[in-house]
Amino acid sequence: MRTILSVLVMMLCTTSVCAQVKTKGFAVFEANGHFQPYEFNRHEMGDNEIEIKTLYAGICHSDLHHVFSDWGKEEYPMVPGHEILGQVVRVGKNVTKFSVGDYAGIGCMVDACHECDWCRQGLEQYCKKVVLTYHGHNQYHNGEATQGGYSNKYVLNADFAIKVPANARMERVAPLLCAGITTYSPMQFVRVRRGDKVAIAGFGGLGHMAVQYAVSLGADVTVFDITEDKRSDAARLGAKAYVNVNDPKQMQGHENEFDFILSTIPQYYDMNAYLRMLRYRGQFGIVGLPAFRNMPSLKLSDFIFTGGRYVFGSQIGGIRETQEMIDYSVEHDIYPEVEVIRPDGAEIDKAYKNVLDGKVKFRYVIDMREVK
Amino acid sequence: MRTILSVLVMMLCTTSVCAQVKTKGFAVFEANGHFQPYEFNRHEMGDNEIEIKTLYAGICHSDLHHVFSDWGKEEYPMVPGHEILGQVVRVGKNVTKFSVGDYAGIGCMVDACHECDWCRQGLEQYCKKVVLTYHGHNQYHNGEATQGGYSNKYVLNADFAIKVPANARMERVAPLLCAGITTYSPMQFVRVRRGDKVAIAGFGGLGHMAVQYAVSLGADVTVFDITEDKRSDAARLGAKAYVNVNDPKQMQGHENEFDFILSTIPQYYDMNAYLRMLRYRGQFGIVGLPAFRNMPSLKLSDFIFTGGRYVFGSQIGGIRETQEMIDYSVEHDIYPEVEVIRPDGAEIDKAYKNVLDGKVKFRYVIDMREVK
Repeated sequence: MRTILSVLVMMLCTTSVCAQVKTKGFAVFEANGHFQPYEFNRHEMGDNEIEIKTLYAGICHSDLHHVFSDWGKEEYPMVPGHEILGQVVRVGKNVTKFSVGDYAGIGCMVDACHECDWCRQGLEQYCKKVVLTYHGHNQYHNGEATQGGYSNKYVLNADFAIKVPANARMERVAPLLCAGITTYSPMQFVRVRRGDKVAIAGFGGLGHMAVQYAVSLGADVTVFDITEDKRSDAARLGAKAYVNVNDPKQMQGHENEFDFILSTIPQYYDMNAYLRMLRYRGQFGIVGLPAFRNMPSLKLSDFIFTGGRYVFGSQIGGIRETQEMIDYSVEHDIYPEVEVIRPDGAEIDKAYKNVLDGKVKFRYVIDMREVK
Repeated sequence: MRTILSVLVMMLCTTSVCAQVKTKGFAVFEANGHFQPYEFNRHEMGDNEIEIKTLYAGICHSDLHHVFSDWGKEEYPMVPGHEILGQVVRVGKNVTKFSVGDYAGIGCMVDACHECDWCRQGLEQYCKKVVLTYHGHNQYHNGEATQGGYSNKYVLNADFAIKVPANARMERVAPLLCAGITTYSPMQFVRVRRGDKVAIAGFGGLGHMAVQYAVSLGADVTVFDITEDKRSDAARLGAKAYVNVNDPKQMQGHENEFDFILSTIPQYYDMNAYLRMLRYRGQFGIVGLPAFRNMPSLKLSDFIFTGGRYVFGSQIGGIRETQEMIDYSVEHDIYPEVEVIRPDGAEIDKAYKNVLDGKVKFRYVIDMREVK
């Protein structure tokens, strides 16, 4: 039945009765490939959906992992991008949440089942039928391969688009949709409070957002990173201390110090060293995910020897919480520090190289406004 | 200065001015060795110390790990035993906590610094200067090599001895001092409540205590073990469900089921399988410690993919909590199921073999009463 329906839909679409959405973007055509212009169709907008014109698209470290097939074999061509700020250009007839002209954000997911326990709890990121913004398949639209935000248009369920206040700093909003929510959510999970001793390990795209949220919640923040270059940036964003992990002296004396450590590190590292820095009942949250070939771990004995401390992982955040994060960020003037680049394959390639080489502070954003 | 003092003390002791405590026990003389009678001296009882006559000594699975040097190279001869029930026979002049004739329990530690943050919080097990009951060195008594409870006497700081009510079932008390507190403490740590879904993984010496505590706290308890043989025992102790881990069918359908899982498993196992059985905000507590050569672990990616669940380790419990556990256990008639054996090297050897082969239900206790 489903197959017959799909065939019928395809026949209708080839006769132009349904209006698939022609989209222009930048794709890689193989693992480690270069970015090149790429045109493709998105599914026809449904009654519960909206179409947005992309204004800005952030480059997330995880885009690199996907482009490089670091987390398993991927499908190509691939248009990455799950940090998207757009403007609504069309609205499905059932949609009341958005009007044409509204600003809308898209993060890591564009739909889910709406029915399971996870969806009902507002934790759609754990739904087994979640649709990822790119490198996924949209089972609610005939298994369409999803393509991300390095493109001029997106069509998605309005429930999964985030309302962005008109007074937001639009050029800097996009990375909030991943880097922002990924660090905001665990702060809420552990309920960071005024005076808490919080460490942020890894001071890049995620880390510099985490510092701002922790500081705004009143925490006493220490940054751990592998370079001296970001010391003044950390202080400027409100961190009280900065530890260069490559200096053994600076690494001394932190045992039992922190109530909460959030690791955004996307490379191999010694997890146990951070576990030991927690106070009793302290919590070690993990959001940075390195490549599978180089994945750190904790031995059972590490947990026993540093007993009474918690470790947990966290994936982005649910839609309700993402909306809360956007509203909180705009209200508290918390934004990523961005370098805006032109929508050009070679520019994106160059940005990727700089991210890999650790030369970006802190987030690249592609200006997609002129891609019509 | 310290060295001169030590020499002076030794000189005094050899001239019998100080009364070292002659002790008879059972020791192994090499890794994997057989148990043989062994006589040794304990340090002279100090003003803050008590001497006890051992009545019963439990055989803990970790005794086997130490005897076998599973957790690193050990010193021999070794008298194991950190589950000790005794009766007070002498009391130091500053001691008010005990009188001669009182029943006293000794667990895994016999002294600590009394000054650090850990000691002040009543978490002496994490004190860096803690003295282990055996396979340790007592820095407060000239570095004396500590020997455990498979012996007729013990001399220790009265603060580290636990008061055992006179109405306790004495034959079954000893294993509470390790198996009891090790499972009671994490139940308090996570604050198990009526109606919580709790799983106990590994239904041996520790596991069968954990089940009793969880049931007494009103939890709905499921037991995981690798055999069918203990199904009826689990039901008898109050578990509502029993899962034979070796049956793939029984392992299905437990995703997102438990508020708390306590693993007492002392062998290699798939930690991630248990992590996935937790509900959101659920907690996975680890108390069983396998041999170092075969230590399970969790990859960073496991935490991310099963986000929002906590993992923590736990070591026994502090002295204050151990006293609370003894009082709670006696009040609620919670005891280990024990098989009492005679104080004989060959008997202990046989018991070890049965523990290794999984043939014991649930705890061996050596009757030390007749060892004078």
